[in-house]
Amino acid sequence: MKSYREEVWFETQSRRDYINITPQVQSAVQKSGVKEGLCLVNPMHITASVYINDDEQGLLKDYDDFLERLVPHEPISKYRHNNTGEDNGDAHIKRQVMGREVVAAITNGKLDFGPWEQIFYAEFDGRRRKRVLIKIIGE
Amino acid sequence: MKSYREEVWFETQSRRDYINITPQVQSAVQKSGVKEGLCLVNPMHITASVYINDDEQGLLKDYDDFLERLVPHEPISKYRHNNTGEDNGDAHIKRQVMGREVVAAITNGKLDFGPWEQIFYAEFDGRRRKRVLIKIIGE
Amino acid sequence: MKSYREEVWFETQSRRDYINITPQVQSAVQKSGVKEGLCLVNPMHITASVYINDDEQGLLKDYDDFLERLVPHEPISKYRHNNTGEDNGDAHIKRQVMGREVVAAITNGKLDFGPWEQIFYAEFDGRRRKRVLIKIIGE
Repeated sequence: MKSYREEVWFETQSRRDYINITPQVQSAVQKSGVKEGLCLVNPMHITASVYINDDEQGLLKDYDDFLERLVPHEPISKYRHNNTGEDNGDAHIKRQVMGREVVAAITNGKLDFGPWEQIFYAEFDGRRRKRVLIKIIGE
Repeated sequence: MKSYREEVWFETQSRRDYINITPQVQSAVQKSGVKEGLCLVNPMHITASVYINDDEQGLLKDYDDFLERLVPHEPISKYRHNNTGEDNGDAHIKRQVMGREVVAAITNGKLDFGPWEQIFYAEFDGRRRKRVLIKIIGE
Repeated sequence: MKSYREEVWFETQSRRDYINITPQVQSAVQKSGVKEGLCLVNPMHITASVYINDDEQGLLKDYDDFLERLVPHEPISKYRHNNTGEDNGDAHIKRQVMGREVVAAITNGKLDFGPWEQIFYAEFDGRRRKRVLIKIIGE
């Protein structure tokens, strides 16, 4: 069994952002040398998500509107977590709604995806350096 | 290490539907010959979910009511994604709420499940041919 | 390839509860002898979640408030599932919002986590014995 590990770092300019990281994951799969296996991709932070969906600008806005309507950032005082002095209570909840991680199949040395599947890093508390873990196992 | 891959196709008659696919996944586990390992099941489309829960008709209606209340299909114009000419903006969001994929343990050659765990394919933009990927690795 | 399986049992005193199970999972990783691999953690029940986030008391209350606002336990009659005689229709939906399972990377024989990642068992229909499955594969 082979295994491979890589970290990819991000620093978004806005509090929330949605970044297509499929090229970085594809590159990791290639470097791993794994032909048949599984690829786990997850943020190493708890106010961000990795998810799979469409790379379409309107949809990214729809996600952001949906999440902000469901779990508004303000008023900050709404979230008990913010009593710790932080202001990211909403981000911890948004991340749960969008999910933490993605597990993708590797077949014939490539991500085994349908035509529209793209891997995104969703940042809900950005403007600082944060990272994603790619872990691959297989043969 | 062994690996196994199978696609299962669906075409629902209504826009949204919830289909128990446990028999197909069990069959794939058996065909794989894997005794100890992991089984990934995911739609290869971005407007559908694979999830694990109860096969109870009332609950399936509860899920559908909950999702349609949270992310209504209409008005179509509510979703920027639909400016592309599509009408499935809601389906991309519903799929995120229900999740994309399931990873299940395989032990002694069988899905290692509690008594009520059943694998479902949830379709949010149906009436066309769509497929689910089953990928198994282990020994 | 090595594999390891363990069940961990819980019985919460209240209907809903959030329990940090990271120590139990770390212990299982150690017992598995796996240095590089993947660790799946999932409830074997369909009214509970395993998720990764912060061990902060205010946040746990925020999660509970959010879920109860989104999917209130009462009125019981609101959920068709409860026509079966059960009263846990809300719990089946809350579990979907928080997710079923977690897949974590194992690197150098340890959970490959960022500084704040903690694994939680979220119970939405407690006061009875329920269990979590830990399944580890790797080398």
